[in-house]
Amino acid sequence: MEKFMVIGERIHCISPVIRKALEERDPGPILERAKEQIKAGAAYLDVNIGPAEKNGEELMQWVVQLIQSECDNVPLALDTANKKAIEAGIKVYNRAKGKPIINSADAGDRIDNINLAAANDAMVIALCAKEGIPADNDERMMYCQQLLERALEAGMDPEDLLFDPLFLVIKGMQDKQVQVLEAVRMMSEMGLKTTGGLSNVSNGAPKALRPILDAYTVAMAMMCGLTSAIANPCDKKVMEAIKTCDMILGRTLYADSFLEL
Amino acid sequence: MEKFMVIGERIHCISPVIRKALEERDPGPILERAKEQIKAGAAYLDVNIGPAEKNGEELMQWVVQLIQSECDNVPLALDTANKKAIEAGIKVYNRAKGKPIINSADAGDRIDNINLAAANDAMVIALCAKEGIPADNDERMMYCQQLLERALEAGMDPEDLLFDPLFLVIKGMQDKQVQVLEAVRMMSEMGLKTTGGLSNVSNGAPKALRPILDAYTVAMAMMCGLTSAIANPCDKKVMEAIKTCDMILGRTLYADSFLEL
Repeated sequence: MEKFMVIGERIHCISPVIRKALEERDPGPILERAKEQIKAGAAYLDVNIGPAEKNGEELMQWVVQLIQSECDNVPLALDTANKKAIEAGIKVYNRAKGKPIINSADAGDRIDNINLAAANDAMVIALCAKEGIPADNDERMMYCQQLLERALEAGMDPEDLLFDPLFLVIKGMQDKQVQVLEAVRMMSEMGLKTTGGLSNVSNGAPKALRPILDAYTVAMAMMCGLTSAIANPCDKKVMEAIKTCDMILGRTLYADSFLEL
Repeated sequence: MEKFMVIGERIHCISPVIRKALEERDPGPILERAKEQIKAGAAYLDVNIGPAEKNGEELMQWVVQLIQSECDNVPLALDTANKKAIEAGIKVYNRAKGKPIINSADAGDRIDNINLAAANDAMVIALCAKEGIPADNDERMMYCQQLLERALEAGMDPEDLLFDPLFLVIKGMQDKQVQVLEAVRMMSEMGLKTTGGLSNVSNGAPKALRPILDAYTVAMAMMCGLTSAIANPCDKKVMEAIKTCDMILGRTLYADSFLEL
């Protein structure tokens, strides 16, 4: 079984530093975050340029080429609502280290992103939601099926889909946590790959608690079969959880130094 | 669902301090470890007096009465190969806070301890092993069935059995970890309660790694349904794992202070 895949979340226009760097086409802050995430163990980097309605195509091409040329063609997840920007990004994307990931399709307005992935031989994050949060796992699994069917009809390999059950905030939605974990298990039992925005879980919790909530959530989700997460690889506690669970699950070999590897 | 039950492991004759205190009937060190474990969150305390072939009955009665009288009748797991010492201990045991636990029966020579539990209205740890380590989960589950049948024939409530899949050392038996976790899941799916010696897992690993290995193992095992463990409640990392997973699983309510509760 493959090692757990961390998609680094830190190149995101919600960060003022990154937003400014994207606007000004300033490589420094972007490359700094790219390199620190790779060093910390990210296998993929998410690149969120926001809605990018103006100049989205040029911006995505600039940032894809910037990061890949400076970071040994690290594979990327292209994250924007602007489909043309995603297509433009894929045009200049170097596949040496892995296919691009489209972040994301859902079972609603964005279901066409499945076809965008199929047409471009890309992977895609398939968010099992339509409008808002699924009411229960019947709804979640129905969306999962709809997304899978759309992908199969378009000729995709199911391996190229990362199904996202939509991780929910504990503080306010504590009662839904088990449901999300069970959804991961159901998807895993179908043989599907899974992912999710891990830091959703600890949103709003005290800063000292956030790594703890995220770490044990990812541990329990890995026991349910979770194969990747969009997470902060610079969070040592989360990486400790992922490395330890990968080792317990037999995906990496035990060595006394396994946490440093 | 009930909160995860920690059976404190620190009153054990393998500790030179405890061995000496037991031999000399010196209350100090025993009560100190009892109180610190209760304070740290142990629901039960294991009391291991060793083989106790000589004076075992008197020794077990002394230690049971000592701990219960000084610690508000904390419930205990009576841990010795000397059956008469267990029976003697139960005679003076105060059930105000919970039944005594017999530690332990197995599917081999010690299967009669099931009947000992039945005859004394006690709980019992049912180790799913016979001679050495079960080769696979077919063997483990066969022992689980044998122990369960013996208990049902003796008129026990299955709730009074804590099935122990036998946690195994990672360093040397890494490839068996998933099997043990799957055994926990199978037992849980049968509606059975489960437990195990958590610190077995990290035996021989560097001291700094042990809490990490134990913490993520218990998190993954809790996702599989594990309901208790024989563990060191003074290990903050392990208790952090247990408290966080109990909360994620909805067994305790989230509060920003949940780790301190």
